[in-house]
Amino acid sequence: MKVNLLNFTPEPEKTVSLAAKLCYSDSTIGELEDRVKESSQEKFLGKIIKMGHLSVLEHASFVFGIEGISRATSHQLVRHRLASYSQQSQRYVTVSSPEYVIPGSIKKDAAKRKRFETEMKRIYRLYKELVEEGVPAEDARYLLPNAACTKIIVTMNARELLHFFNLRCCERAQWEIREMATLMLSLVKKEAPLIFRDSGPSCVAGACGEGKMTCGKPREIREKFRQL
Amino acid sequence: MKVNLLNFTPEPEKTVSLAAKLCYSDSTIGELEDRVKESSQEKFLGKIIKMGHLSVLEHASFVFGIEGISRATSHQLVRHRLASYSQQSQRYVTVSSPEYVIPGSIKKDAAKRKRFETEMKRIYRLYKELVEEGVPAEDARYLLPNAACTKIIVTMNARELLHFFNLRCCERAQWEIREMATLMLSLVKKEAPLIFRDSGPSCVAGACGEGKMTCGKPREIREKFRQL
Amino acid sequence: MKVNLLNFTPEPEKTVSLAAKLCYSDSTIGELEDRVKESSQEKFLGKIIKMGHLSVLEHASFVFGIEGISRATSHQLVRHRLASYSQQSQRYVTVSSPEYVIPGSIKKDAAKRKRFETEMKRIYRLYKELVEEGVPAEDARYLLPNAACTKIIVTMNARELLHFFNLRCCERAQWEIREMATLMLSLVKKEAPLIFRDSGPSCVAGACGEGKMTCGKPREIREKFRQL
Amino acid sequence: MKVNLLNFTPEPEKTVSLAAKLCYSDSTIGELEDRVKESSQEKFLGKIIKMGHLSVLEHASFVFGIEGISRATSHQLVRHRLASYSQQSQRYVTVSSPEYVIPGSIKKDAAKRKRFETEMKRIYRLYKELVEEGVPAEDARYLLPNAACTKIIVTMNARELLHFFNLRCCERAQWEIREMATLMLSLVKKEAPLIFRDSGPSCVAGACGEGKMTCGKPREIREKFRQL
Repeated sequence: MKVNLLNFTPEPEKTVSLAAKLCYSDSTIGELEDRVKESSQEKFLGKIIKMGHLSVLEHASFVFGIEGISRATSHQLVRHRLASYSQQSQRYVTVSSPEYVIPGSIKKDAAKRKRFETEMKRIYRLYKELVEEGVPAEDARYLLPNAACTKIIVTMNARELLHFFNLRCCERAQWEIREMATLMLSLVKKEAPLIFRDSGPSCVAGACGEGKMTCGKPREIREKFRQL
Repeated sequence: MKVNLLNFTPEPEKTVSLAAKLCYSDSTIGELEDRVKESSQEKFLGKIIKMGHLSVLEHASFVFGIEGISRATSHQLVRHRLASYSQQSQRYVTVSSPEYVIPGSIKKDAAKRKRFETEMKRIYRLYKELVEEGVPAEDARYLLPNAACTKIIVTMNARELLHFFNLRCCERAQWEIREMATLMLSLVKKEAPLIFRDSGPSCVAGACGEGKMTCGKPREIREKFRQL
Repeated sequence: MKVNLLNFTPEPEKTVSLAAKLCYSDSTIGELEDRVKESSQEKFLGKIIKMGHLSVLEHASFVFGIEGISRATSHQLVRHRLASYSQQSQRYVTVSSPEYVIPGSIKKDAAKRKRFETEMKRIYRLYKELVEEGVPAEDARYLLPNAACTKIIVTMNARELLHFFNLRCCERAQWEIREMATLMLSLVKKEAPLIFRDSGPSCVAGACGEGKMTCGKPREIREKFRQL
Repeated sequence: MKVNLLNFTPEPEKTVSLAAKLCYSDSTIGELEDRVKESSQEKFLGKIIKMGHLSVLEHASFVFGIEGISRATSHQLVRHRLASYSQQSQRYVTVSSPEYVIPGSIKKDAAKRKRFETEMKRIYRLYKELVEEGVPAEDARYLLPNAACTKIIVTMNARELLHFFNLRCCERAQWEIREMATLMLSLVKKEAPLIFRDSGPSCVAGACGEGKMTCGKPREIREKFRQL
């Protein structure tokens, strides 16, 4: 899995602070811009997020390039509707080299892994044969597994990212999307450390929200995300 | 494939007409309701849609139950973000009986079909074995193919449906999602014939929008959708 | 202020339950429909909402007809983007009879009220004169006050309504939109009592979420919304 | 009216091209980035937009600072739901200096203008008095006119901007929002000339879409937007 931050709104925290200040001020946008440039936004942004005034976070967007995730994971990812996606098409792109994800529970057991990989080889071989025999790629792909790798470019704004990390960085999320979400968080945290300081599963900023389904190790998780 | 209309906003065309009338009238909502009840909305609704005043169509929603489509198709479907989805989970539900979709280009050739089905059997057998040996269903499903059947409940409003049918009923759309979209259209057309009268690919109401990629048979397609 | 429930997805709670069951079941939609019809959804729906599996609530929509609210309130209302609106146009509809909202803090003081109403009369008189002298209604309306009444048809699904009521039924919300939201809640509670049982400001279902800005009377508020 | 482009996704056209290429390519994102950097995207982007593959435009966002528009205009603006807004609050900010917009049809006639301005002065005077006498600003503002100026920060992605300009730059749009939209377009055209080359009302890229309501001067309008 490879996750890159391809692009983002420059100075995301200044932009967000400016928008937040505008709501409560009689000053011109120019005056507010000067004020935002001069000083740290640390206290102010922390307060804004704590108050739940989250709409201002929508003014900062982040563009990720993601490769080497399975289609099992991309199917979960694209269910987040407040985001933009451009995904490599299995209809228009004929797969040349088989690439797939092996879940840890299978990979760690040599025998199981072998059976899994043997099956993958058979699948991709038949896929290739069918395409060569004239079956359209868009039909041959019906064979391809959930494990098949995909590439996707994803844009989310900071508000949606906070929500996404809240759900998908949690121990209860599926392991592959959790790994992906955690990589995404580590990347945006560098660019907008104030916005994403307490980001991650709900136990990072407060109490576990999973009730009886809790992983039971909030302290450990909190530590991990704080140090990300 | 099985597509049912499970539920919808009652009297969708009256509701949409009422909303449209409100925008341009000084009357109370009660007065407008009486006026809408008394008379046919045929002319009025046709005009509203032609004018592009489409936001009023959002007040009518339709809930579909869809079964027996492949995950190749559901992955395309859920990319429509102005809609609501509840899909059978491959994480939480262990597949007991193998169900999958065979594309026509494979089905029509007995030999290809056999190779495809043999592979499906192998895949589902290994899936079952791994689950029985203790691999979590959410990991074993990495084996499962795009062809695997899924069930999904989908809600879209009439505005989004017009857009969805425009894209997905077109000959250029992938065959399985086209079949599904066409079934959906035939169901809503019964309940809201005025709203969906010219619905379908762009050639139904006007000119083909596919440029050089046109299927070249707009007259035939138009006829098909008019009679749906 | 007049708030009516004009229309809604029939049997909203059965529909929502069906969608929730589908996610975790191997049964067909038909089998699940039978199961949902036969029994109360009380326990099940309560659990679903508590778990935060809120997306299933999107399959039930509610259409409201709202009259006699000020444009100050409609401007706040339409900021909720996951909803559909059809509003009486001040561009296309020339106001014939002045209708406006007087805030309680002004209404309760006879002298203030008189000054306010005198001003309203002057405003509407000049509006009328300008229109009669040939100024387009869309320009004359620049005179009209935030207090001016408007009519609007609003559709929201149950998930967005829970969010809307959470924000707008709170004592900290502006009084007019709070009054409107509370009327809306009382109407949907009759049709979907399980979904909206604990709906309202956050203090109804749990702790106050307003921090230092709390109204300080959560018990009283909770009682009010429970009995709605 | 003052419209500034406060911020935007850097290299918007490279970002959009990269996303479009990914959908149809077997290359890695890194390889595609190199290819996009090396060459002009002129032909490619033109083709993408003409084909209607508009979702890729969502990866580039633009943040505008807008001041000196009336609340009549901001009420229309915020009806566009695929956008983010932070607006100066009339609840929390007490207006100190009266600022308002005078429509051209009133401004051009000295007598009408005088009557309009006299009324504005009365309104703002009463607003000020009521606030000084203890009426909360959130109630006193019920007096304030649609003409009252507001400040707003708006973020839209390039896809939504194309749609917004299509509707709001048209001669049929209300004059103030048309002026604002045209200023916005002139600003983004400098930063993403390929994306916005044919942007504006529908007559810029093709035929007028207003039917009988056409302004009747598509050639003139087209020229104006081409030279923007």
